[in-house]
Amino acid sequence: MKQLQVSLGERSYPIFIGRGLMQNQALWLPFIKGRQACVVSNDVVAPLYLESVRQALTGKQASECILPDGESNKSLQVLSRVYDHLLAENHNRTTTLIALGGGVVGDMCGFAAASYQRGVDFVQMPTTLLSMVDSSVGGKTGVNHPLGKNMIGAFHQPVCVVADLALLDSLPEREYAAGMAEVIKYGLISDAPFFDWLEENINGLMARDPELLAEAVYRSCVNKANVVAEDEREGGRRAILNLGHTFGHAIETAEGYGNWLHGEAVAAGMVLAMMLSCELGDLPQSVLGRGRSLLEAAGLPVLPPANMSVDQFLQLMGRDKKVLDGRLRLVLLKSLGEAYVSSDTGVEQIAKVLRSAGVSV
Amino acid sequence: MKQLQVSLGERSYPIFIGRGLMQNQALWLPFIKGRQACVVSNDVVAPLYLESVRQALTGKQASECILPDGESNKSLQVLSRVYDHLLAENHNRTTTLIALGGGVVGDMCGFAAASYQRGVDFVQMPTTLLSMVDSSVGGKTGVNHPLGKNMIGAFHQPVCVVADLALLDSLPEREYAAGMAEVIKYGLISDAPFFDWLEENINGLMARDPELLAEAVYRSCVNKANVVAEDEREGGRRAILNLGHTFGHAIETAEGYGNWLHGEAVAAGMVLAMMLSCELGDLPQSVLGRGRSLLEAAGLPVLPPANMSVDQFLQLMGRDKKVLDGRLRLVLLKSLGEAYVSSDTGVEQIAKVLRSAGVSV
Repeated sequence: MKQLQVSLGERSYPIFIGRGLMQNQALWLPFIKGRQACVVSNDVVAPLYLESVRQALTGKQASECILPDGESNKSLQVLSRVYDHLLAENHNRTTTLIALGGGVVGDMCGFAAASYQRGVDFVQMPTTLLSMVDSSVGGKTGVNHPLGKNMIGAFHQPVCVVADLALLDSLPEREYAAGMAEVIKYGLISDAPFFDWLEENINGLMARDPELLAEAVYRSCVNKANVVAEDEREGGRRAILNLGHTFGHAIETAEGYGNWLHGEAVAAGMVLAMMLSCELGDLPQSVLGRGRSLLEAAGLPVLPPANMSVDQFLQLMGRDKKVLDGRLRLVLLKSLGEAYVSSDTGVEQIAKVLRSAGVSV
Repeated sequence: MKQLQVSLGERSYPIFIGRGLMQNQALWLPFIKGRQACVVSNDVVAPLYLESVRQALTGKQASECILPDGESNKSLQVLSRVYDHLLAENHNRTTTLIALGGGVVGDMCGFAAASYQRGVDFVQMPTTLLSMVDSSVGGKTGVNHPLGKNMIGAFHQPVCVVADLALLDSLPEREYAAGMAEVIKYGLISDAPFFDWLEENINGLMARDPELLAEAVYRSCVNKANVVAEDEREGGRRAILNLGHTFGHAIETAEGYGNWLHGEAVAAGMVLAMMLSCELGDLPQSVLGRGRSLLEAAGLPVLPPANMSVDQFLQLMGRDKKVLDGRLRLVLLKSLGEAYVSSDTGVEQIAKVLRSAGVSV
């Protein structure tokens, strides 16, 4: 098992990475301080893993709240079912919620924990590659609003993250690849040696070699933890984690949440961000080429959807959280492993890059 | 003008107390850091004061979100209208919300600020005595759930509190008295000299003498700020602020939010808590007598509603947030000005006190 610590003062917490951790109650049960616990999961994950978690919750007064699967259910309306459940089952302020699922479950359960009785503990048990390397680390929680993604939420750190790699054995190919997009992102934004390592090992990783996978998840979490420790509430540096996300959110919104997986939209978005970085003269074309090739080797899209227009992109990007006082902030690359946030990008430059990526006018 | 500071490290903020402060934009406008602002108010307060606030927001891109008045509207459903408004008006992460109203508006606006785009700034502009001395100080925000009061929320501190005492001139008698219940509470729990002062000046205070009122609000805020500074997230000492509140919440829930005002329910609840303190042998009967007399002099109820039963009380108290791992925690008095939290009170002792206060079996 690998282990690392996210350093956030009194909100610090460990991430455990390895196979069979879900059944290893000695590892994570001590993080549940009270007598009560509630497993929040969805109707796809629960039939597979809920029983294992329940059995591990020895001596706890446990209940479960099963939500409908899918990004379209990441809403205030579905979230309110969690509150209903917790109150109906008399969960008090010492309860601990356990997020058993992917990013949607983690974000919703995390926000429920942030807001139930003004805040209770929660454990992240990510069941997808994407959530292991991204959403379960860093404390971003929330739900979507019809007018934008993640518009309602809070920063709320888990008490620990249990990343059981055995759960990835049964993950569908497409979801596995989508998770790999975020893994590759860490190489691009902050870890050139990791990018090199990914290039060398992408075939073994896509074959889900256990040793390689453990290393990839570990190094992704180390990179994310370092960035988050520097800037917990996204005042500055943390924004580099959003490489490709402003373009990506526009794609997800236009196509409908879930039709393009988050990781797929981010993959195409990262290519656009790299193209823009090249256009601005910062990034060598060779890095763009290597990034695109690695994403393709992971089975990810490297072009935006054919049915989107430049205007649609620009409009949807303007509604993004990353707009500060009316200026569009984009994450760009200076070189491989070095990202920065720019507010200087003009609409015309973005439009030019979109057109050259085949987006219609 | 009086001013004090709530000391919470990087979340510290000032409270300004005086007449005409709402129009004094030089005082509070510097606390709005971005270009955008949104005034959140209700349909009773807005016609009276919204225009003054708007005029003070010189140079800001301001909008307003007016909610229906009343505790029954302190719900997730009504809260979601604030999110709808903020998104429709393109408020970004640098916006500042301004809570212009009583406790309901303050709690809802505060929680909207805590959760909009994972947290934005907000200013408290309390318009009632109760909210000036209680809810606008301390960072508790949230909404009610059909199964319990304030069950969904967050700790989120304002950037400043502007308590304009001129607004109290037109406050209805009953609401003014309800606010005085919390003022008296500070004397009971942590400030015996203040209690003495209140006894001496209660008639002048009820006549709304400006000097006396300013002093009462100031000393209430000082007491609250001291307790909050010691225990921001209610891990321990902060709970003493809830003297009478567990009984009071049971009354509010049983009678329907708003039929008994919060301060009225707290007044009757404080008498019950003092009776229980006497029953347990801690508190001299003389303090109970003085507390009851002062509350009566402020025009407040000192007996629970006639239509509640002992069982109803006990059941509703069990659903309160102040229950830790199944044990009912109650705030009791050791002496005048000295409160403590007890988990040792038996159901039978509570029932006995309720019966002796005239509650039916």
